[in-house]
Amino acid sequence: MTQRKLRLGAFIMATGHHIAAWRHPGSQIDSGVNIDHYIEVAQTAERGLFDQVFVADSPGIGFRGGEEALRRQGRVSYFEPVTLWAALSAVTKHIGFVATASTTYEDPYLLARKFASLDHISKGRAAWNVVTTSADNVHGNFGLDAHPDPALRYERAHEFVQVVKGLWDSFEDDAFVRDAASGVYFDPAKLHALNHVGKHFRVKGPLNLERPPQGYPVIVQAGSSEDGKELAAATAEAIFTAWTSPAEAQAFYGDVKGRMAKYGRRPEQLLVLPGISPVIGRTEEEAQAKWAELQALIHPAVGLAAIAPFWPGEDVSRWDLDAPPPYIPEAPKGIQSRTQVVLELARRERFTVRQLYEYLAGARGHWVVVGTPAQIADRMQEWFENGAADGFNVMPPVLPASLNEFVDLVVPELQRRGLFRTAYEGRTLRENLGLERPGNAFAQAQRAAA
Amino acid sequence: MTQRKLRLGAFIMATGHHIAAWRHPGSQIDSGVNIDHYIEVAQTAERGLFDQVFVADSPGIGFRGGEEALRRQGRVSYFEPVTLWAALSAVTKHIGFVATASTTYEDPYLLARKFASLDHISKGRAAWNVVTTSADNVHGNFGLDAHPDPALRYERAHEFVQVVKGLWDSFEDDAFVRDAASGVYFDPAKLHALNHVGKHFRVKGPLNLERPPQGYPVIVQAGSSEDGKELAAATAEAIFTAWTSPAEAQAFYGDVKGRMAKYGRRPEQLLVLPGISPVIGRTEEEAQAKWAELQALIHPAVGLAAIAPFWPGEDVSRWDLDAPPPYIPEAPKGIQSRTQVVLELARRERFTVRQLYEYLAGARGHWVVVGTPAQIADRMQEWFENGAADGFNVMPPVLPASLNEFVDLVVPELQRRGLFRTAYEGRTLRENLGLERPGNAFAQAQRAAA
Repeated sequence: MTQRKLRLGAFIMATGHHIAAWRHPGSQIDSGVNIDHYIEVAQTAERGLFDQVFVADSPGIGFRGGEEALRRQGRVSYFEPVTLWAALSAVTKHIGFVATASTTYEDPYLLARKFASLDHISKGRAAWNVVTTSADNVHGNFGLDAHPDPALRYERAHEFVQVVKGLWDSFEDDAFVRDAASGVYFDPAKLHALNHVGKHFRVKGPLNLERPPQGYPVIVQAGSSEDGKELAAATAEAIFTAWTSPAEAQAFYGDVKGRMAKYGRRPEQLLVLPGISPVIGRTEEEAQAKWAELQALIHPAVGLAAIAPFWPGEDVSRWDLDAPPPYIPEAPKGIQSRTQVVLELARRERFTVRQLYEYLAGARGHWVVVGTPAQIADRMQEWFENGAADGFNVMPPVLPASLNEFVDLVVPELQRRGLFRTAYEGRTLRENLGLERPGNAFAQAQRAAA
Repeated sequence: MTQRKLRLGAFIMATGHHIAAWRHPGSQIDSGVNIDHYIEVAQTAERGLFDQVFVADSPGIGFRGGEEALRRQGRVSYFEPVTLWAALSAVTKHIGFVATASTTYEDPYLLARKFASLDHISKGRAAWNVVTTSADNVHGNFGLDAHPDPALRYERAHEFVQVVKGLWDSFEDDAFVRDAASGVYFDPAKLHALNHVGKHFRVKGPLNLERPPQGYPVIVQAGSSEDGKELAAATAEAIFTAWTSPAEAQAFYGDVKGRMAKYGRRPEQLLVLPGISPVIGRTEEEAQAKWAELQALIHPAVGLAAIAPFWPGEDVSRWDLDAPPPYIPEAPKGIQSRTQVVLELARRERFTVRQLYEYLAGARGHWVVVGTPAQIADRMQEWFENGAADGFNVMPPVLPASLNEFVDLVVPELQRRGLFRTAYEGRTLRENLGLERPGNAFAQAQRAAA
């Protein structure tokens, strides 16, 4: 029996995940709009045999804190994900591309089309990270007076995904004949209009693009709220999540996989990939020194702006940095579960204000592991072999430097342990991830009726 | 004084512009979804020093004629333009990319963002062909009961372009400081929210992407109706148009450039680029034989489907192919002017049904020139030097074969005559086209107020 292998995604965030990364000499300072930087990063990830690269996204600018914090934020200008990945697909051969796109603010026909196009352009390496958009600063860009509430967003998301899949099925896989001699290009009997009429959408179809090489681009989900877990159980093939202890990760892993049966799905059809932000040193001392160097680059105004959303309405800038926050609020319902995790941690650890923002500074509450390649591999192996993860979404604190270190130092360690591939197995992202290629729903319905 | 140079765009349509191109051995039969084909074509156009490549687009499938015609249509499945050009920008250095996108069916924030992203990814080589979408088969994909009428579409288009430009101006050109030492990333005083409230859109902004390298991607327009000419005069920097005689082209050229003054624009800020579909032979006989070979590949059902839209409600399949159409209708008002041109021509030339569809088969009514490189260059020179064109949108009948011939045979002829460049002059598309980089409206308003 082949040993189960862990899956690796590289979660790419411009200059890196650490909040002060852009000030670090190991980052590319203008990377949000520097295509050569992204080419380098994607090619490095491919050299490291990563399954995929991933970018988060929101169609708007998130303003946090006052002007003093704003001018110090390095994340206000960045490429649109699908155009970015289309470009990188032309200069890579194996790695997959996970693009984030919003079911709340995009249109299903246009979205189905651009992801199908990306899947064809990349020859089967596209994935869609389905988000309902949690930022509250976006609705005004789309003529809305308010951000729709979570229940409505998730209801729309379920229908949106259904419509998009239906559009991807417009042409059956063998619809195209292309026989120059007879002059027959395709078989119209294998072209299907969706004729969707639902609560949120009416979409006639068909899509003007043949079925994606992967059938459907891989569906990814990243919310860990109740609604998010339900959407993942119903539709996702990979889920990005944020936990800092194996116990929490195990509970989540069991929870989300346990919800799949009611949608007629098997646990292995969904890969659970927690985030890990590795700070790598050849020795533990070197790793700790790197971490301290990064933390020292955080301007307090930026740190305070990072924690301010947990205390809505409060002017946190007046707080003593070296005392605990004056009070810990309850996490609002329906908000992404990371908020709950962070507030619970602050309460339990009696963090000072500075400790709290330094904790979040690493990777916004994701799991930060500071250590040697062997120590980092130990922790990944522990989670992987104990029902906490099917792999990881690696969040380099500084880009490109930290990704280079991971590929050069941690990947070989994982390979030595037999935990990670030594060559790509498949031609498509879906094949590399060990996910089945979905059948065409129209074709299946016709066969069932025959 | 430098001699005025003509501008060349390559209008790329999958297997080629001839309606039967996909059956020709010189075409790539699956080119609508074959990225390697498009890479080859873009690199060939760049070898030929073309200013730009261009794709038309509509977010839906146009069904024409019955099933007999439908199964023979080679244009039902093709890449989405912006993802396509993003990919090709990574494997080219100089050529510009004109992507068509609809102001009727897209969202201005998302559109502004993807074109800004493409402009950054390509380092200043993006252009947007602004269309209001003329196909009547699209509205159902977007939940509408009917295609909005032309007046409403153009009204929306004017506002849409205004919003998009406003979003591109969100950051002033010098907004980004990126000073690691002080920790200041950008100057918030140089970031502007649009706060647009209009008849069709409410868009707050700002865009989450710094100003495109070209200021704005080049704005292109392709409709030649009254509304289309007005939109071009107000906003476009290049216009694609379809004429078959120099007199008509001259009249159009003067008309559209004459409308610019009332928008405070100069005639040289708009390049008029008629389409030309060149069928090239080393001798005139070879060219005519190539043309005949292509025409012989047209199945009558496909030919009839191409002319059917001119006779709405009529069953053209029962007509005698070798007699003139039983009657010539009046062109409906508000429809693209190409319809009028075609019907007038059919009337004047007393075309048979077959002659009419063969005429349209070359490039859907665009100007087809069959001849030697010198003959084709003669015609281009005549138009260019007599107020009919600033350059041409070259529509290869078969792809990649006809583009190779144009680059190998016609481009050197144009260069020998001093009509066309021998090396790219600029770094961006705008620089190569000789178009000014627009200033930032917010910055200009502030300077004016100061």
